Amino acid sequence: MVIGAHPDDADVTTGGTAIQFAKLGHRVLFISVTNGDAGHFSNGGGALAKIRRSEAEEAGLRFGVTYKVLDNHDGELTADLNIRLDLIRLIREWKADVVIGPRPYDYHPDHRNTAILIQDAAFMVIVPNIAPDTPPLKKNPVFLFVQDRFQKPNPFSPDISVDISDVYKQKIYAVAAHESQFFEWLPWLAGTLDQVPQEEEAKLEWLGKQRKSEITPEIRTSLAKWYGVERSKSITAAESFEICEYGRMPGDDEIRRLFPMLGN
Amino acid sequence: MVIGAHPDDADVTTGGTAIQFAKLGHRVLFISVTNGDAGHFSNGGGALAKIRRSEAEEAGLRFGVTYKVLDNHDGELTADLNIRLDLIRLIREWKADVVIGPRPYDYHPDHRNTAILIQDAAFMVIVPNIAPDTPPLKKNPVFLFVQDRFQKPNPFSPDISVDISDVYKQKIYAVAAHESQFFEWLPWLAGTLDQVPQEEEAKLEWLGKQRKSEITPEIRTSLAKWYGVERSKSITAAESFEICEYGRMPGDDEIRRLFPMLGN
Amino acid sequence: MVIGAHPDDADVTTGGTAIQFAKLGHRVLFISVTNGDAGHFSNGGGALAKIRRSEAEEAGLRFGVTYKVLDNHDGELTADLNIRLDLIRLIREWKADVVIGPRPYDYHPDHRNTAILIQDAAFMVIVPNIAPDTPPLKKNPVFLFVQDRFQKPNPFSPDISVDISDVYKQKIYAVAAHESQFFEWLPWLAGTLDQVPQEEEAKLEWLGKQRKSEITPEIRTSLAKWYGVERSKSITAAESFEICEYGRMPGDDEIRRLFPMLGN
Amino acid sequence: MVIGAHPDDADVTTGGTAIQFAKLGHRVLFISVTNGDAGHFSNGGGALAKIRRSEAEEAGLRFGVTYKVLDNHDGELTADLNIRLDLIRLIREWKADVVIGPRPYDYHPDHRNTAILIQDAAFMVIVPNIAPDTPPLKKNPVFLFVQDRFQKPNPFSPDISVDISDVYKQKIYAVAAHESQFFEWLPWLAGTLDQVPQEEEAKLEWLGKQRKSEITPEIRTSLAKWYGVERSKSITAAESFEICEYGRMPGDDEIRRLFPMLGN
Amino acid sequence: MVIGAHPDDADVTTGGTAIQFAKLGHRVLFISVTNGDAGHFSNGGGALAKIRRSEAEEAGLRFGVTYKVLDNHDGELTADLNIRLDLIRLIREWKADVVIGPRPYDYHPDHRNTAILIQDAAFMVIVPNIAPDTPPLKKNPVFLFVQDRFQKPNPFSPDISVDISDVYKQKIYAVAAHESQFFEWLPWLAGTLDQVPQEEEAKLEWLGKQRKSEITPEIRTSLAKWYGVERSKSITAAESFEICEYGRMPGDDEIRRLFPMLGN
Amino acid sequence: MVIGAHPDDADVTTGGTAIQFAKLGHRVLFISVTNGDAGHFSNGGGALAKIRRSEAEEAGLRFGVTYKVLDNHDGELTADLNIRLDLIRLIREWKADVVIGPRPYDYHPDHRNTAILIQDAAFMVIVPNIAPDTPPLKKNPVFLFVQDRFQKPNPFSPDISVDISDVYKQKIYAVAAHESQFFEWLPWLAGTLDQVPQEEEAKLEWLGKQRKSEITPEIRTSLAKWYGVERSKSITAAESFEICEYGRMPGDDEIRRLFPMLGN
Repeated sequence: MVIGAHPDDADVTTGGTAIQFAKLGHRVLFISVTNGDAGHFSNGGGALAKIRRSEAEEAGLRFGVTYKVLDNHDGELTADLNIRLDLIRLIREWKADVVIGPRPYDYHPDHRNTAILIQDAAFMVIVPNIAPDTPPLKKNPVFLFVQDRFQKPNPFSPDISVDISDVYKQKIYAVAAHESQFFEWLPWLAGTLDQVPQEEEAKLEWLGKQRKSEITPEIRTSLAKWYGVERSKSITAAESFEICEYGRMPGDDEIRRLFPMLGN
Repeated sequence: MVIGAHPDDADVTTGGTAIQFAKLGHRVLFISVTNGDAGHFSNGGGALAKIRRSEAEEAGLRFGVTYKVLDNHDGELTADLNIRLDLIRLIREWKADVVIGPRPYDYHPDHRNTAILIQDAAFMVIVPNIAPDTPPLKKNPVFLFVQDRFQKPNPFSPDISVDISDVYKQKIYAVAAHESQFFEWLPWLAGTLDQVPQEEEAKLEWLGKQRKSEITPEIRTSLAKWYGVERSKSITAAESFEICEYGRMPGDDEIRRLFPMLGN
Repeated sequence: MVIGAHPDDADVTTGGTAIQFAKLGHRVLFISVTNGDAGHFSNGGGALAKIRRSEAEEAGLRFGVTYKVLDNHDGELTADLNIRLDLIRLIREWKADVVIGPRPYDYHPDHRNTAILIQDAAFMVIVPNIAPDTPPLKKNPVFLFVQDRFQKPNPFSPDISVDISDVYKQKIYAVAAHESQFFEWLPWLAGTLDQVPQEEEAKLEWLGKQRKSEITPEIRTSLAKWYGVERSKSITAAESFEICEYGRMPGDDEIRRLFPMLGN
Repeated sequence: MVIGAHPDDADVTTGGTAIQFAKLGHRVLFISVTNGDAGHFSNGGGALAKIRRSEAEEAGLRFGVTYKVLDNHDGELTADLNIRLDLIRLIREWKADVVIGPRPYDYHPDHRNTAILIQDAAFMVIVPNIAPDTPPLKKNPVFLFVQDRFQKPNPFSPDISVDISDVYKQKIYAVAAHESQFFEWLPWLAGTLDQVPQEEEAKLEWLGKQRKSEITPEIRTSLAKWYGVERSKSITAAESFEICEYGRMPGDDEIRRLFPMLGN
Repeated sequence: MVIGAHPDDADVTTGGTAIQFAKLGHRVLFISVTNGDAGHFSNGGGALAKIRRSEAEEAGLRFGVTYKVLDNHDGELTADLNIRLDLIRLIREWKADVVIGPRPYDYHPDHRNTAILIQDAAFMVIVPNIAPDTPPLKKNPVFLFVQDRFQKPNPFSPDISVDISDVYKQKIYAVAAHESQFFEWLPWLAGTLDQVPQEEEAKLEWLGKQRKSEITPEIRTSLAKWYGVERSKSITAAESFEICEYGRMPGDDEIRRLFPMLGN
Repeated sequence: MVIGAHPDDADVTTGGTAIQFAKLGHRVLFISVTNGDAGHFSNGGGALAKIRRSEAEEAGLRFGVTYKVLDNHDGELTADLNIRLDLIRLIREWKADVVIGPRPYDYHPDHRNTAILIQDAAFMVIVPNIAPDTPPLKKNPVFLFVQDRFQKPNPFSPDISVDISDVYKQKIYAVAAHESQFFEWLPWLAGTLDQVPQEEEAKLEWLGKQRKSEITPEIRTSLAKWYGVERSKSITAAESFEICEYGRMPGDDEIRRLFPMLGN
């Protein structure tokens, strides 16, 4: 279960891992806490939300995951009790073993508030008197943070790193389902709208280059831990996760059980 | 679709009419906006909410309706935007023709806030940019108020009155599913806990007498309008409704179409 | 127990009745829901709140009642759940038989919100799961509205009228304890600051004339009901109250028991 | 100064009167409390808000008034303290003699909340400690309600009625500046999108017929009071206002001074 | 003065120190910001709150401290201004020299919000215009954090460590007053309900083992600083505190004055 | 553009730099998010707010900057969406290249909430659907934190340091415009009211000594980076800034372009 603030956040941070989970027969749920109704230059509101929802559904099909878009305003997310309770219910209904989301240190207030909401849901998912309409989980899930570049108050720590080299192309294809984002809004923001290729293949290639995140030395070390030094050297694409102290703290054995794609 | 503040409000005000709708093959939805977690003298919180939810489900079975209990705190309901949006979605998903609820003039703050929430949902259910995750209705439903005894700022007006004489006993049987309410909490409040009969039959009879609401002259007149003077005289139990000006304003013909149990 | 929005509201509407209660040995509590920190032209905030609190304490001494000033901002009162719970606790702790406050139809938003807060507290004072730190009352008190001049959506109805002719002078003396209000702020608002007398006696006389509220025909009729036609004719000052439908509905006998100063 | 909830409300209810004020050399301000970002079937959010703002500016030019659109979400307006304070500042800055807005009885929650906000601003505009960044008014303005059709808890009362027969055509031309509303969204809602004429002249005529509000007997009586029985008979279009009890209560003389277009 | 989120938090983190303070004749106040009404598997709401309040009172007797339980919902605490003001008033009324509470880094959202509330009260306790109904303190108290295990963004720093070896048994006896927590709810959460001993003595022993927190090297170093290396070696139980930068920053001398149980 | 919580915060942290900007012909805007209406011992509310606003205007004149005081209550600031939107609009209208404010680690809750509000405005200033009444910026500004003494969770890092030795006296003169703060409230808080000199010159000297902030080794190193080792040694007064990761991340070249007073 991966929670993002917008209908493309989970995709970018965890899409490759999700594809691998799906191939292994695991059920994965992507959640967007907002409906994305602010993320465009010429469109907005409910009209935009509908486009983004249908793009998210298409992306879900491509990833092989279920995609759920909550109907909160984009760009105005707050860490309200009501939304916390919504997340608690979703985590319980999905009987999530692992909940993945952003750290509370991020440039976008929606991301920060999503992080707070997820932390606020941790532990509460096992308390029966909270959201009593939904049976509590027996065990607090493992909560993980996705990779980011922010250094303060402390940098992201890649406790778990997944080799997604073999599914990177599929990930980019799935991510590309968010047409209005990756080929319209984000290039517009970056002032590169005129560089977006027209042709489908070229668009995917362009996007693949854009979204390739650097494998830092710390991530390379983490990959070596999980896949062995040998294999780690040839990995070309990875997704990393930090263990959140507010959920269950898994040992290495449990991590390998939860992430069967990690090498032994 | 009948919206009450607590998991027994819809039952008492509209239960007989709901039984008749169900018998005619219509789908009826009862909603409780709160989870009823404050309505008891020795029990409370999530523990009580679970009891009340299961009582409501049993009542739904007895009425022949679907019963949905929202998970808001009892006794602390506010007319929040989030709950308004929840109601808008429910009204849309049910494709409701008629929405029934309390007037904003009532002794219980949860009832008043439920009334405000319903009024705030009216009209908005047809606006696509509001709650864009749920397709809007094509037509604003007819919104009705249930009967109450309050005179200010103006008394309840029985625009529509339904003869429930033939199903009154079944209504009481269904209402009685709310054990913790009608045989525990409300008698405790009234100081009559020791008068509640032990035996099942006797309990129903006792409840039937308690809940028999007076047929005022205004209601008798309304019954005469809808059933003819002759029949109206022999009616022993009725449920009345006032048309809310904020929904669609139906003419008599439409009312008869919507309420097929009314005589011709 | 009389609840006003500001530290002088209870005094003006119910001061004479309170003096008579006090003389009969009843305990009376005046509450101001706000601290009055906006009601002045050259002073404000905590500094003003302290002045008004001490004026209210002096007024309480003159009336023979307890005066409690809650610390909410003047002019910014909202009908928040937290303040509702505070009022519930106060009503319970005082074991109030009668709770008196404004109607929700009034020129001042603080008055309207005070009225809503009181209505929201009614009934809830007998529910043990609400504000569980304070034992509930056994019986819902009688809730009364104080007199006002507003006609819409319906005018004030003087269900109970108290002859305060004999204590009117004492009432004015007690009201005058709110120096910063009656001799500074309100004349400033009215543009009559230069008409306020300097000398103590003259000030009281001036205030007494100002605050003399008209005895309307409806009030005269009400006085006749409670005191007999004869006596009612000679009454020169009165305070009237309307019964709120959301509290206990008292019959005439109970009213006479609750208000022993009413004639027989 | 006329306050509506949406960028076309003031126009429809008070547009004719505003034109007459403008012709008499008075400054008139139209305010929309929301930015109208929900009122369309295929457009929404900031994108729609920009369209509606520019339509409102065009309408302002046609009416000869200043048009100010506040940036609150359409369809989600609440009676928040912050917005109340914004209105207080606007009323003060405009040095408004008259403030006109909706009654709190209306089918649209934004209209009801606008009404509450305006009532909450009344009186507060003369209190210097509230919104101390803006000098208070010396006198509470006259607050008026615009005409509506709602009967409960009490019907609209046409205390003041303005003959707008001579400017009705100009009013419709100005109203028509809200293209996205009157020729797109509202017909879509009514299912009459296909009946909207294409040609400019025809569109205005069609709109003029649509928006012609009935002159009820009560309004005819009011017109007779203000214009004399003779003239009142020939009036073909009127706008009526009810005096709100929470502002200054003007006598007939003051009304004629404030509304110089009323006959003598 | 020790502030916890729930009616047992202060006990576990600071109970031994509180016993020593009490023995030295200091007045200690334990506060629970929530009423604990969610912390159980088969009980809840006001019913549970009453049990937890009476357990807290019993614990207070055993510790020799005053125990105050605020009436906010457990599991739903937010850092609201109203609760901040309540804490400001309590700190002032108690004339607290030292205020102890959790760090804002913790697995439980109520703990995090309690930490924020306390930080928000720091400094404000000396500002007279804030909560003007309660006289401000002359000096900002020393604010301390209790020990926790969380490492990010930075680990707990044991600036002050108190040897509680001699009162550990008494602490456990006092903690055990929270029957519903330590022998019901927490074992239920941990799945160890069947391991709770029946017999009183055995229960205390079992609890004593459970709650024994490790003396880390950092704490051992801190104990050596305050008690000397010699004594520090034999300490078997300790409670540690970190100085919060938002309160008064005490030097070692002042710390010894405030904590007379520390060695010289 | 410098944003502080109170009408003197920007002055103390960035006043010298602002004077230098002003001398270089740059437009600088100082913003106070609160109106400072709590910061005094004998004055408060709107009355105090007016004094502080006029002191801020005088300070603005002395600094050569525009000073804008928002009208939020001092001591009660929350990170509300409405205030975030206000800041977004102000940043856009000013077309700010650089936005300077406090870190979210600070002893005063208003400072912390101001920091959160500024971070929440970062990035959003370039999103057109947010606050659509104000055209978005083309580029995210550089966001900087002002110097503070707090060490946790991580200390302030002086990425940029400005030599203000030559304008320090002018800075103190401008700061001194906040009479009610620096010569009344803050000395009162510190218990040094009797040490404030009477005579104007002496007051400035006294203030200059008080406000002289230490040049730490880290700042000295930063000054050496920007001004060269030689000059850095003789610098007697400096203002330092840390780059916030949520705005645009400038390289050294861009920093020199933005801060032309830095040496080459």
